Amino acid sequence: MVGRRVFAALLAAVLALPVAAAAQEVVQKRVFEVANYRTRGGAEIPVRIGYQTAGTLNAAGDNAILVAHFFSGNSQAWGRFAAGGPPGWWDAIIGPGKPIDTDRYFVVAADTLTNVNTDPNTTTTGPQSVNPATSRPWGMSFPVVSMRDFVEVQKLLLDSLGVRRLALVAGPSMGGLQAIEWAAAYPEMVARVMPAISADIDAWMQGWLNIWAAPIRLDPNWREGEYYGREPPARGLAEAWKVVTLHAQDRLWTRQFDRRAAEGQDPARRIGDRFQVEQVLDAAGAARARTTDANAFLYIVRANQLFLNEYPSMEAALQRSRARWLVVPTQTDRVFLYPGVQEMVEQLRRAGRPVEVAEITGERGHLNGVLFMTQAGDRIRAFLAAQ
Amino acid sequence: MVGRRVFAALLAAVLALPVAAAAQEVVQKRVFEVANYRTRGGAEIPVRIGYQTAGTLNAAGDNAILVAHFFSGNSQAWGRFAAGGPPGWWDAIIGPGKPIDTDRYFVVAADTLTNVNTDPNTTTTGPQSVNPATSRPWGMSFPVVSMRDFVEVQKLLLDSLGVRRLALVAGPSMGGLQAIEWAAAYPEMVARVMPAISADIDAWMQGWLNIWAAPIRLDPNWREGEYYGREPPARGLAEAWKVVTLHAQDRLWTRQFDRRAAEGQDPARRIGDRFQVEQVLDAAGAARARTTDANAFLYIVRANQLFLNEYPSMEAALQRSRARWLVVPTQTDRVFLYPGVQEMVEQLRRAGRPVEVAEITGERGHLNGVLFMTQAGDRIRAFLAAQ
Repeated sequence: MVGRRVFAALLAAVLALPVAAAAQEVVQKRVFEVANYRTRGGAEIPVRIGYQTAGTLNAAGDNAILVAHFFSGNSQAWGRFAAGGPPGWWDAIIGPGKPIDTDRYFVVAADTLTNVNTDPNTTTTGPQSVNPATSRPWGMSFPVVSMRDFVEVQKLLLDSLGVRRLALVAGPSMGGLQAIEWAAAYPEMVARVMPAISADIDAWMQGWLNIWAAPIRLDPNWREGEYYGREPPARGLAEAWKVVTLHAQDRLWTRQFDRRAAEGQDPARRIGDRFQVEQVLDAAGAARARTTDANAFLYIVRANQLFLNEYPSMEAALQRSRARWLVVPTQTDRVFLYPGVQEMVEQLRRAGRPVEVAEITGERGHLNGVLFMTQAGDRIRAFLAAQ
Repeated sequence: MVGRRVFAALLAAVLALPVAAAAQEVVQKRVFEVANYRTRGGAEIPVRIGYQTAGTLNAAGDNAILVAHFFSGNSQAWGRFAAGGPPGWWDAIIGPGKPIDTDRYFVVAADTLTNVNTDPNTTTTGPQSVNPATSRPWGMSFPVVSMRDFVEVQKLLLDSLGVRRLALVAGPSMGGLQAIEWAAAYPEMVARVMPAISADIDAWMQGWLNIWAAPIRLDPNWREGEYYGREPPARGLAEAWKVVTLHAQDRLWTRQFDRRAAEGQDPARRIGDRFQVEQVLDAAGAARARTTDANAFLYIVRANQLFLNEYPSMEAALQRSRARWLVVPTQTDRVFLYPGVQEMVEQLRRAGRPVEVAEITGERGHLNGVLFMTQAGDRIRAFLAAQ
């Protein structure tokens, strides 16, 4: 790695490329395996998940930070998988000298169980994986896993790496849910929690998650999940991603499309024709469908619906926490509505937890908490410095 | 009618029935026909729509009020179609002595074109109607109609009834869209406008309308709209109604379901099992699917997407208005977001229109503007009294 870094720095100097040479950021993805993972529901499965690390763990094993990914993401919170490739989703705040400073902290990010992505940079175990008992994909016979299962597998990974205490567990959206689940499951191990664009999965969100997933089951190619080696339910999966895509944005984002018809189309006269915003959503949905698995979408929906399912309530779960909290919401979030975030903050206060709020603004709704996190950069630095 | 009223009052006195005898409220539904309606898109179709009236038109023809219905509704803004049947959706504010006082005003409500309802109390013309040229249902060969077409047919109806001026045009949600469209199309005819839980259909809403409709096209029984006389796309239509149902509520409404599993089900262990909120949404969707037409859903979605499509912008349309405005929003509306309502109010102010805002509160989100309109009762009375 050092050789490549030096070479890249040299190349950058010669070519006057911008700053930190790209090669320096190329992350190495590794695979963590558990031969016999027992799910919270009582099933036993072999598990393989991908992960990446940055920085160095100290001797005490207590300078670690876990960063958890959102619904459609993977471990790539920072860095690039190849020189010139796209940077990680929180790359702006994770790296040497950045708010989550990899010169000081040992940062870990992993692919969750039942991750939706089928690209070569994601390793996961879910319905698309091969069931060793049958040598065929599990499909819908894969056991249900919960958000807590995601955390349990991460716990085994961190144990294997020698991590004894997390200075911070953080993530946006579903990543925030994992952070909250961590704080409840292992309160003695978690010093700080930073859930961004996250709040409780109440019945309202359970209902929306159902609606996200519904188009998959409607697609005749879904065949109760038995589509491996055949035509996949690409249309249903694309429609599912369309709902997620629009839900994760705000109306301000759609201004760019005005109310224009798609090019060459006349929706005022032809019922099959489209407006531009529809065409953009169709294209976004179809693109995501090509690199994701429909059954995995159904399973990750269920894992979200099962958020904190081992506790009587969100409040009961939060009362177990011994951490400091930095809550990062955005007011135009149409997924995790702002009043829900306010309730979580109140519950943390009632539980006697130190809690701060750092709001993110922007025109992208829910996605503000992925795209514009540098706004909270100084708050994150101060939060990590606070004892 | 008077005979029936007197008899009903007598009967109520004898039986100690509550107040205004039910029979008094039984509305008579009539049918309005246009032999050759030319759509705004240039097609010619025969049109039949149902309507109901209450009160008496004065000699000047200027004490009329038009009440327009929401996406899934019909003309039944007030009254019952049968004694003991359910009351109209704005019955609480329309009737003798009520804020929209049928002792003083001649109130008209009609079924829109491409109305989704297939019950015997709705008469509409849409893809489910018979094309006289083929003697078979139009299906997707029915011409596209716009919100402006809804207004144009209402205009012909009002002309036929002798109405010369509207003291008020009002409605919730899509009813509010029609009211706004009226104010722009016939400014000289509209004295007052009351859009409730309504605002512009921007690209954001065009996108959501697409997502509402998408499950219908995914259902293999849809067959490009050629399902009449065969198995209808009931599953897709039910999923479509599920999206509308949840979208029209707020998270406060879902509290009643907590995060409970559906009875006898175990979603933490079986992927096919459900949470209670999902079961409720499934049942609501399936129930609505039984009395609605899938193609009509697609056409009414398009009519909504075409809101004000003959004007360069919402602001340009509002500038045509010569009316007084009473805007009735609710802050927890997840369909027409509150910032959109604020923009409309600003645009009306810039256009020099007298505009007031009467907010409705409640735990039902968008539906607050259907269910809890009595909160605005005094404001409506004062608004109608203002010259």
